[in-house]
Amino acid sequence: MFATVEEGIKRLRAGKPVLIYDFDEREGEVDIVYPAEVITPQDIAFMRQIAGGLICFVTRYEIGRVLGLDLQTRILRKIDSLSSLVKRPSYGDEPAFSIWVNHVKVKTGIRDTDRALTIRELAEIVKLVQEGRTEYAKVKFIENFYSPGHVPILLGRVGERYGHTELSLMLAELANVSPALVICEILGTSHEAATPAECLKIAEKLGTVLLRGSDIVKYYEEYRARYRT
Amino acid sequence: MFATVEEGIKRLRAGKPVLIYDFDEREGEVDIVYPAEVITPQDIAFMRQIAGGLICFVTRYEIGRVLGLDLQTRILRKIDSLSSLVKRPSYGDEPAFSIWVNHVKVKTGIRDTDRALTIRELAEIVKLVQEGRTEYAKVKFIENFYSPGHVPILLGRVGERYGHTELSLMLAELANVSPALVICEILGTSHEAATPAECLKIAEKLGTVLLRGSDIVKYYEEYRARYRT
Repeated sequence: MFATVEEGIKRLRAGKPVLIYDFDEREGEVDIVYPAEVITPQDIAFMRQIAGGLICFVTRYEIGRVLGLDLQTRILRKIDSLSSLVKRPSYGDEPAFSIWVNHVKVKTGIRDTDRALTIRELAEIVKLVQEGRTEYAKVKFIENFYSPGHVPILLGRVGERYGHTELSLMLAELANVSPALVICEILGTSHEAATPAECLKIAEKLGTVLLRGSDIVKYYEEYRARYRT
Repeated sequence: MFATVEEGIKRLRAGKPVLIYDFDEREGEVDIVYPAEVITPQDIAFMRQIAGGLICFVTRYEIGRVLGLDLQTRILRKIDSLSSLVKRPSYGDEPAFSIWVNHVKVKTGIRDTDRALTIRELAEIVKLVQEGRTEYAKVKFIENFYSPGHVPILLGRVGERYGHTELSLMLAELANVSPALVICEILGTSHEAATPAECLKIAEKLGTVLLRGSDIVKYYEEYRARYRT
């Protein structure tokens, strides 16, 4: 049922989505992952109609920090009346949520055209940071986005946390694709999460593959070990 | 195309959803509105599959304040690196977003069963506040919810703002229904917002009606004028 990591790398590098199942002992959910740079209103519609979870923008924690972002948990801890609401979810680690944004040119923020615009423009900001143009990236981010909006930004802590946020960033690094992704949980029709078997059908419909989180982690760690030596 | 406000009141009082179009000069969008107390996993699935917007919990700003909540804009203004991201959206007024929560008993937070649980339990907290048991409500809220999560809380400022958040709260007050609602934008198939004509078909499918924001405001203001004398 699960494809090799190489198959996933090939798809992501070609601008296609990939499906990732995390771990039995974690969420036990499949997310669909797209490179953010090329996201279209049609992709947004597919995610809301077929996947059904939250449509989130993913980047690395370090890139978020450059832009002045931080984890929502750390923001809430600074507000007296809300700090007690920060708790660990049942699957263990602190969520990757930062803040929710819209690009200033959206109509209302929620439409497919709007969310695609917000996400593509966020990917542009990440690109500037990657190119080392951090001051310009920061100014452009502050000028062209507002919060709260309709697209959650997730900040991944690769090597510390093993959620879909981090799995998608590991795959992006392996594929040499920008650390700017879109992820959305696949809920299917059961009122729980869609099973890997259900998701396999969706993957086939999209001409893509379903990967296993543990395979990505293994592949990534081997790659990093080789890279370090 | 638009039904009378009385028809909407009747539906909401019977625990049914109602569709509300705001105003041509505002978002120009239709939201589906449910009483939160009776929300089911099936309703959540309907919203994500057919409506497609954000599935939000709505209550009054004053009730949020009792629970220690505030608008997200006011939270972000307290964080130096994020305060410049607070801007007015193109349709004019500051968004109603507060924070995003999960009930502590959810599995991952996003599943239909999870979001229905979070929303029904939030409605219970609102009920406690309405009954004057504010201290108990506050303790129970802090103990049983965590943030960030998957359900945005919107705090409506009735009389000051005229978004779907406030329109749904006005209708709830007219229907003598608890100020605890779920709203979700209807996006349809066009990649923009669904038109009122498209939404009318959805309303008919659900055995409910489509109301016009301006009719709700007019009816509500007449009701308040009578009530005040």
